[in-house]
Amino acid sequence: MGTPEHTSGAPGTAVLGIDSGGSGLRVAVARAERPDEPAVWSSATPVAVGAQGIDAHGLLAQVLPAVQDLARRVGAERIGAACVGAAGMASLGDGLRAVLPAALADALGVGRLALAADGVTAYAGALGQRPGAVVAAGTGLIALGTDLVSGWRRADGWGHLLGDCGGGAWIGRAGLEAALRAHDGRAGGSPALLARAEAVFGPIGELPGLLYPRTDRPAVLASFAPQVGGCAGTDPVADRILRTAARHIAQAAQAVCPPAERTTAGDGPDATGAAVALTGGLTGMGEPLLGPLRAQLAALLPHATAVAPAGDPLAGALGIAAALADGTLRLPADPALLTVRQLGAGHNPA
Amino acid sequence: MGTPEHTSGAPGTAVLGIDSGGSGLRVAVARAERPDEPAVWSSATPVAVGAQGIDAHGLLAQVLPAVQDLARRVGAERIGAACVGAAGMASLGDGLRAVLPAALADALGVGRLALAADGVTAYAGALGQRPGAVVAAGTGLIALGTDLVSGWRRADGWGHLLGDCGGGAWIGRAGLEAALRAHDGRAGGSPALLARAEAVFGPIGELPGLLYPRTDRPAVLASFAPQVGGCAGTDPVADRILRTAARHIAQAAQAVCPPAERTTAGDGPDATGAAVALTGGLTGMGEPLLGPLRAQLAALLPHATAVAPAGDPLAGALGIAAALADGTLRLPADPALLTVRQLGAGHNPA
Repeated sequence: MGTPEHTSGAPGTAVLGIDSGGSGLRVAVARAERPDEPAVWSSATPVAVGAQGIDAHGLLAQVLPAVQDLARRVGAERIGAACVGAAGMASLGDGLRAVLPAALADALGVGRLALAADGVTAYAGALGQRPGAVVAAGTGLIALGTDLVSGWRRADGWGHLLGDCGGGAWIGRAGLEAALRAHDGRAGGSPALLARAEAVFGPIGELPGLLYPRTDRPAVLASFAPQVGGCAGTDPVADRILRTAARHIAQAAQAVCPPAERTTAGDGPDATGAAVALTGGLTGMGEPLLGPLRAQLAALLPHATAVAPAGDPLAGALGIAAALADGTLRLPADPALLTVRQLGAGHNPA
Repeated sequence: MGTPEHTSGAPGTAVLGIDSGGSGLRVAVARAERPDEPAVWSSATPVAVGAQGIDAHGLLAQVLPAVQDLARRVGAERIGAACVGAAGMASLGDGLRAVLPAALADALGVGRLALAADGVTAYAGALGQRPGAVVAAGTGLIALGTDLVSGWRRADGWGHLLGDCGGGAWIGRAGLEAALRAHDGRAGGSPALLARAEAVFGPIGELPGLLYPRTDRPAVLASFAPQVGGCAGTDPVADRILRTAARHIAQAAQAVCPPAERTTAGDGPDATGAAVALTGGLTGMGEPLLGPLRAQLAALLPHATAVAPAGDPLAGALGIAAALADGTLRLPADPALLTVRQLGAGHNPA
């Protein structure tokens, strides 16, 4: 497949997007001229993360056979450009940065490579290359924003004890606290949430013994978030939790969203102002969360336009690869969040 | 030392109080007629807690030599009554309940034995045998209350993820969230708390890597609570955290405090109404917390009298033992919280 002497966007070349996270690995390949029609492969086996960081060789062992098969399926002869998005890229990505460039150039003939934090691929999937802010929320929550000029801004993503305010674990934890308040007869309790907690977890007095020994405590807490959503509209405590979560989400977006003057002064495609989107599993909460979120975003970010995410992080990785291939990448480079490498002698500017 | 044929409160007999917790073990022995003048021994080695619960034999190995020495020091010939208070007694105390009665009767001639949850010894230390509510707060927080007639009520104590609202870990966690909000530029941030967090923990971006791998995460969070107290009066975010903590503490007290009619109808010592006290390490926060707490207690429990705790849990255990010895124990028995056994043939009512 391919040689180092190709051009990244030439006819017959493909682009490759990879999304590596805690729940598994997904790979998409599309012809460079048809990035909206990818062939996709996925694996439920996450790439191992050890003391050495994300296991680059483990990632390659899954990815390389898949890419060769996907390239055949889309009729591509070589991979012109690739983007690997991975959870933990910023802090645990040294192995990927050391191994992937040569390995992907040698095995797949990749000419241009982007290594991205999963927040960046989430951003690109949701907003493409528009200026704005994206809040990626599942169990946790992190916001990334950019004006495409002065780099990235990040907010939250500090984990379930220090932040991730408004994310799935935050909502579920608040719901369980309200259940236990009802059990105790303390103020702020919700009998409805108590009933749902006992339906899900059994006798509430045994919940600490179930929760604390687990190593996936944030996921256990987040598993209760849909029950909070299910009480919305009929339980004032659940409504208050969801309104507060919406405020936290909007505050994270506000902290990273470019100001109005940066995005409305020009007359180019930015003139409509910044876009703001929520992406990730938390969007599955639906209107009980998204309704209050719209209200909070309108209050805190009146100059921004709230939009539904256009695609997921895998689509974002593929979009970054496509922009790399045709030289139109505008998302800012950043040592931790987004690094771009020209691979192969034919295109190395040095 | 002693025989099974003594009387619990006879001259020459002593009473024994034990306070076993996560930070160690303390033992007090006093002559029955002078419970306010105990001899005290302490050990920084906590009694082991394993899959079998609290290690009764490990407790005895530390306690028995200490008691024999303390009894000699107060000039007592035998131990008439004893109270063992232990953290985890309710859920992890089966081993203590199985082993201690015979062991303490055999080794020390103990005639009457109370086994108490640490919340009960905290209550007895703070309020003696008055009706009311005690909130015991250090890293965690639990409230116990009683009207001396209808048993115990309990609130919170659910641990740092589900509750312990207003305790040390709760305050410290809220302070660190405010520090990270300032770092991110999110609403609700406190530059003052950010400066203190970096002075204590180093660069704030590395705090997740310091905190999450620890097994004593609640203690790490609680270690920041004094910094929140230190910002009180000059930082509005810290003030709000402490006011909210005070409200949570008062709500826990409110949930367990006996109602006015139960405690003011009589003309005995209860006629002044219920007493409410905060006890434990959190009292070290001082006025920045205790001031707002007085205001909250006055608002939520107007019929109760807020008092400073008279003594600590070790004094409470000794007080329960003294009341057992002279037959004046009024604190309610409870299968999990406070069990009383008559030991030895001479006094066994069976």
